[in-house]
Amino acid sequence: MSEFDLIRRHFTRPTPNTILSVGDDAALLQVNAGMELAVSTDMLVGGTHFYLDTDPRQLGHKTLAVNLSDMAAMGAQPRWATLSLSLPQAHDDWLKAFSEGFFALADEHGVELIGGDTTRGPLNLCVTIMGEVPQGKALRRTGAQVGDDIWVSGILGEAALGLAELQERVALPEGARQSCLAALQKPQPRVALGLALRGLAHSSIDISDGLLADLKHILDSSNMAAEVRYDRLPKSAYFESSDEGMDMLEQDCVLSGGEDYELCFTAPLAHREEIAALVDQLHLPLARIGKIVSGQGCKLRAANGSVIQLAREGYDHFA
Amino acid sequence: MSEFDLIRRHFTRPTPNTILSVGDDAALLQVNAGMELAVSTDMLVGGTHFYLDTDPRQLGHKTLAVNLSDMAAMGAQPRWATLSLSLPQAHDDWLKAFSEGFFALADEHGVELIGGDTTRGPLNLCVTIMGEVPQGKALRRTGAQVGDDIWVSGILGEAALGLAELQERVALPEGARQSCLAALQKPQPRVALGLALRGLAHSSIDISDGLLADLKHILDSSNMAAEVRYDRLPKSAYFESSDEGMDMLEQDCVLSGGEDYELCFTAPLAHREEIAALVDQLHLPLARIGKIVSGQGCKLRAANGSVIQLAREGYDHFA
Repeated sequence: MSEFDLIRRHFTRPTPNTILSVGDDAALLQVNAGMELAVSTDMLVGGTHFYLDTDPRQLGHKTLAVNLSDMAAMGAQPRWATLSLSLPQAHDDWLKAFSEGFFALADEHGVELIGGDTTRGPLNLCVTIMGEVPQGKALRRTGAQVGDDIWVSGILGEAALGLAELQERVALPEGARQSCLAALQKPQPRVALGLALRGLAHSSIDISDGLLADLKHILDSSNMAAEVRYDRLPKSAYFESSDEGMDMLEQDCVLSGGEDYELCFTAPLAHREEIAALVDQLHLPLARIGKIVSGQGCKLRAANGSVIQLAREGYDHFA
Repeated sequence: MSEFDLIRRHFTRPTPNTILSVGDDAALLQVNAGMELAVSTDMLVGGTHFYLDTDPRQLGHKTLAVNLSDMAAMGAQPRWATLSLSLPQAHDDWLKAFSEGFFALADEHGVELIGGDTTRGPLNLCVTIMGEVPQGKALRRTGAQVGDDIWVSGILGEAALGLAELQERVALPEGARQSCLAALQKPQPRVALGLALRGLAHSSIDISDGLLADLKHILDSSNMAAEVRYDRLPKSAYFESSDEGMDMLEQDCVLSGGEDYELCFTAPLAHREEIAALVDQLHLPLARIGKIVSGQGCKLRAANGSVIQLAREGYDHFA
């Protein structure tokens, strides 16, 4: 089967919201009046970001999910995506399952695949996602203000725990095992939350590199500092049930675990109730974990007010 | 040096025509009123599309050039690009040279780099390019009409000859050697031609997969057939000087040689003179190589009118 046939078979779907889709030198799209286009791209490499034997349906989901998470962090409505694939072999079954995982999530969010490239080489998946956000309404990293609450969605460190489980560094009880593997393999991008936060949040970021590393991006971009309460961080029941208190694994997973595709955002006290109400409206956990203060850096405190010292901050592919 | 530092050092440039550039979860851009956004993406894989020891400055140029060529084929004005890099190691020298090659061409065309991703893995370069084209004015593959002239820019098969030279399958004389290696390693995307063809051409494509394979895309998309005169094809002086007539290498290079980032387009007879005038205006060769006719397929004829039979049509990464 040729490159062209492969593309056609698995990656051509109706794209009613695109002027011209897959099949020409470029796609053509129309950004709605009054909207800015938000553009982000992520590259996932086999052996670096995922195991080469990862279930292709999960991989298709995750390849899009990590990009949708960037749209969520900007408060953008995701609309279009391109997908480039480098594959060692072109297996029909693999492509079928991958594309099904990809399109299931795309359909959920109204995203249309409008172009891409397929080639032979080591397994590599590169998505560029485009979304719309009303002019001036995007949630940037630069907007944090003194007195803002710091919020985080979801449960921290589950993806990192899931990875530890796969690597047999921990043996999770069955309930935690399922939710941690799901967090790792089938993350749910917080698109609805991002949209709801337009006009409420002052700043936002997705914490794919770990809470502290990504919160630091907000702080550096906004020229602010933070006080974060460790006991307020939402973490896996696996850690809650442990009597040993905070050990290295917990700290690593909760503070620095990569791949939590959750949002960390800051918002003024005036919007605290509206934001708290999103928990029920959107059916997701939201935790108020600290405060923006003036200065530099992030201070982490225990429930008793003592400062917790940290060894490392986040995941870096070239560290 | 961290991933973040690498990105900052080599890939952050002023982007006056972008609302928000590198450094947030997504870039933000404003498409001008009355414009459609043309979007295309290409993935270049080390060992598949280029030798791993390719000069990084040339590689930076080519990575962007192949994408600019897609904008040219649509008649779009390239404006923004994202770049994702997977690298086995993060060498400062390599990134410096690569980024210089990339930005030299980007600056020439007014393209702003607005985002990307950098990660560890086998060498892989993925660019998504975005450009503007007035509503309804894009040059599609579908518009060829009976009686259209078929045109091609540049010289066919030089990139393929350049590759044959690198692989020591031919030994070119010095003049041909230089131009063929330049065609392979530093292709000049025909952006100005694409812009000039708005309102003149009925259809257009870039012939990165070889003339016949890409002309076939126009024919299939337009439900048309073509008559092409082999003796009118613009080819390297290396072939002209050979007394042996058309041998397999010539046919392969001229008809099916990949990586000629030239445009093949069709236009009505009424615009023949305006198009011919572009040769002087844009300082590039344009050849009128045949006619669009009704029917299916592409018939290739020699100067004496006899039909030339062909073995294969184009390059396919999975064939």
